[in-house]
Amino acid sequence: MFSSFLSDRGLAYGHGLFESILLHDSQLCLIERHLSRLSIGAAKLNIPLEPARILRYLDLFIDQLNSDAVDQGVVKLIVTAGEGGRGYQSPDDIKAAVICSYTKLPEDLSNYRTQPLSLRYCQHRLSVNHVLAGIKHLNRLDQVIARSEWRCDNYQEGLMFTESNHLIEAISANVFVKNAEGQWVTPCLQRVGIAGVMRSLMIDEIFPACSIAVSVAPIMMSDLTNCQSLLLCNSVRGLASVGQLHHQQSHWHKSLPIDEQTLMLCEKLNELYPQYK
Amino acid sequence: MFSSFLSDRGLAYGHGLFESILLHDSQLCLIERHLSRLSIGAAKLNIPLEPARILRYLDLFIDQLNSDAVDQGVVKLIVTAGEGGRGYQSPDDIKAAVICSYTKLPEDLSNYRTQPLSLRYCQHRLSVNHVLAGIKHLNRLDQVIARSEWRCDNYQEGLMFTESNHLIEAISANVFVKNAEGQWVTPCLQRVGIAGVMRSLMIDEIFPACSIAVSVAPIMMSDLTNCQSLLLCNSVRGLASVGQLHHQQSHWHKSLPIDEQTLMLCEKLNELYPQYK
Repeated sequence: MFSSFLSDRGLAYGHGLFESILLHDSQLCLIERHLSRLSIGAAKLNIPLEPARILRYLDLFIDQLNSDAVDQGVVKLIVTAGEGGRGYQSPDDIKAAVICSYTKLPEDLSNYRTQPLSLRYCQHRLSVNHVLAGIKHLNRLDQVIARSEWRCDNYQEGLMFTESNHLIEAISANVFVKNAEGQWVTPCLQRVGIAGVMRSLMIDEIFPACSIAVSVAPIMMSDLTNCQSLLLCNSVRGLASVGQLHHQQSHWHKSLPIDEQTLMLCEKLNELYPQYK
Repeated sequence: MFSSFLSDRGLAYGHGLFESILLHDSQLCLIERHLSRLSIGAAKLNIPLEPARILRYLDLFIDQLNSDAVDQGVVKLIVTAGEGGRGYQSPDDIKAAVICSYTKLPEDLSNYRTQPLSLRYCQHRLSVNHVLAGIKHLNRLDQVIARSEWRCDNYQEGLMFTESNHLIEAISANVFVKNAEGQWVTPCLQRVGIAGVMRSLMIDEIFPACSIAVSVAPIMMSDLTNCQSLLLCNSVRGLASVGQLHHQQSHWHKSLPIDEQTLMLCEKLNELYPQYK
């Protein structure tokens, strides 16, 4: 491919952001939360962005999908810093590029939501950087490399840690852990990790609606040895309970029983947000 | 921009690599070293790549430039993991995408090579990850954010450090430091940083040709306080001596005198590789 125009800063440097949004009955689920995270990311990356304008792009895109008789699936939105600049230096006046694309719902979605997952510990460690933490930017080699560690169907997800053995997230999901003391905790994402839209919904609405306390705090790999339950969440897939944990290098393995509170949380999400059923 | 085909993994995740290669008299300078680094990166990112085939793409591209009467400038090569896969998971059979593009020589090139540079200390810190270290992958937000710290012409480059205050590189160049004891050192890049093509040429050929010893070792920010000389290198720009160091936050400033050995190194590069004159 010979080109003098494939010079978007999104491709050149990953200078951009993305959101994967569940489309259900022609509605973009949790769109306010997606746009809020996108705005935070755009401010960090100096990309000028008007959420209302992004919403108009998305509305147009959904109109187009509707005219093709498509009303559910996943809408992926990419916003980049566009073209221009001198090398790494951004142009004075960044003009964002907006890309909307569509994919079908993942084939394994109903299994994911109903069958307890089997998880690996990823060997690849997350790069730590407090400026890049939280936002969903386009520099995702850590996730790509971690996901390349297995190709069999034995594991549906992998847990990711920092070099200092802090649990941060799964490759494509955030995690909630019920620790040895029976308290629900989700990792602090101030220095590393993606602050998921479903994670924020869980903390703000679903845990409180179940009257279950949840806190944000560091979780070490060693804390998982005696944890009681583990829950993954993702704005496309919803909630999934974890049934098995595997640490290949040490041949350690743990089965997690079905947890009452996990069932409550899943039921509450389904009740308040039936698109995740 | 509405699209269902802008689904290259290079854009989606930065799953790819690049090389910026100096074109001089229709020759790609240091091409063997560029292709060697590209191959190491491709192996790390699981991108199948035949250097001989890449070279044929580049030859075709240069033919095209020649037919447009262009025989000097910068050829940028991007190799990505192409399309496909399920989310972060790569397809079973990655088909690399190759993009060749051209830009003119930087306007400030002769100043860069002849006038001692003025450097800032960047506030933004590099993300550390030993798997991603050394290679020139497409996840470059650290450099983009660091370069956004100033827009004035007072500084030509910025020095980048880790959170633990290790000096690693400049934003677009590697660094050689003549320390307080008069020994030349360049930072170790095992855990973070890009292993530059010109850096390897300096270590393998230019320092030995001048009978000047150089070692690879950690350099702390505090070591710069008493350093005697600082040299930047980059495969497009060549060598540049540093005249001024500025640490904005502490209002610290240091002038560096013109160093005999620095001049020797620059002259030796010009003698052996006259394209960098």
